[in-house]
Amino acid sequence: MTGMAGGVPASRAVGRVFFTDAASGRRSSCSASVVASDSGNLLLTAGHCVYSRGWHRDWIFVPSYDQGKRPFGVWRAEWFVTPSRWITHGRPEDDVAFVKVASSGGVRILDRVGGNGIRPGAATGRRRTVLGYPFLPPYRGDRQHYCEGVTRSEGRRMRMACRLTTGASGGPWLDSYDRSTGFGYIGGVTTNTDLANTTLWSPLLGGDVWTLYRYADQLR
Amino acid sequence: MTGMAGGVPASRAVGRVFFTDAASGRRSSCSASVVASDSGNLLLTAGHCVYSRGWHRDWIFVPSYDQGKRPFGVWRAEWFVTPSRWITHGRPEDDVAFVKVASSGGVRILDRVGGNGIRPGAATGRRRTVLGYPFLPPYRGDRQHYCEGVTRSEGRRMRMACRLTTGASGGPWLDSYDRSTGFGYIGGVTTNTDLANTTLWSPLLGGDVWTLYRYADQLR
Repeated sequence: MTGMAGGVPASRAVGRVFFTDAASGRRSSCSASVVASDSGNLLLTAGHCVYSRGWHRDWIFVPSYDQGKRPFGVWRAEWFVTPSRWITHGRPEDDVAFVKVASSGGVRILDRVGGNGIRPGAATGRRRTVLGYPFLPPYRGDRQHYCEGVTRSEGRRMRMACRLTTGASGGPWLDSYDRSTGFGYIGGVTTNTDLANTTLWSPLLGGDVWTLYRYADQLR
Repeated sequence: MTGMAGGVPASRAVGRVFFTDAASGRRSSCSASVVASDSGNLLLTAGHCVYSRGWHRDWIFVPSYDQGKRPFGVWRAEWFVTPSRWITHGRPEDDVAFVKVASSGGVRILDRVGGNGIRPGAATGRRRTVLGYPFLPPYRGDRQHYCEGVTRSEGRRMRMACRLTTGASGGPWLDSYDRSTGFGYIGGVTTNTDLANTTLWSPLLGGDVWTLYRYADQLR
């Protein structure tokens, strides 16, 4: 099932990211989500949303972005953390990153919009909800969209049938998504699609990713 | 003046381009326009819309793309031609390309939608119309937008005050744009914007570019 995240499963903890791409020098966009971390200022996104032949610049996160509206403000990246293998080899199974954002007016982003839980070791083969901001047709980047489906493992990645396009990269794959609260548990992150836009992929989030998460969360 | 190219200055000879980016491996989009060439199948676009650390793949042109509609069909690239300096040095003043597309059902694209004229040696300091398909906010890539203004030279480039965003790259800068026909004379091509999206840049289209044009037009 693919649809517009209006009313039913839209999440305040998911937002659109804007940045200047290091490879092209041009403005681009991705998706990201808030993690229910100790620091309260940690986001999950894709590795290529922070690093592509260099670190991206002027990186901002707009939770719950909707047709130009920024209901919970704009949050600036302070730190990027991605596996060193993503930088050295750029393989899709390492395409994950955490982003530390600055508090805004003394308020942590987690306290402003909430965040998704960590439950390391979650398996594939279960039903998940994918959220993000695709911007290529038939989407326009202007609002949050979602897919729901069962994930299948594929080597060190997993896949789900989903028609979201470029721009959905970095959006979360959530277990036990609660439509009333808009939160769930992090089970993956969108990194790739196929040419026909029928399938999305995520890395399997294993122990090395959660080690990276703990490292990222204590940066200050 | 910036506005939506609905009714007044929309051009059939300008379209949206979709391709798989060689640098990122992901689908992306640009703009391009048909040239009134002898071959009848030549487009003008930006260099980075065909080459970025490799030649882009699965490159299609949709003239007059409008909210998912493809009123004049989809045209596939057969050849890309860009200055060798764009490939070796990637400087913005060389960021231009010509694309030869395949006829569709025996019909040349120029015969289907028309094209903009060549008038080598046109100067800066004159009033021009810029057209394209910006997709970052406040735009959504779903329809043609335009700017009109006076161009100013800046080294080997020229600039114009214009708020179009990423995705407008490759769109034409036209002299003597005729709002009734939707055609003009090629005076430049959008290649860059600034972070605040207040200004666009184009290379100065000099003799070397028109030599490249003649080479591209005879490819078959």
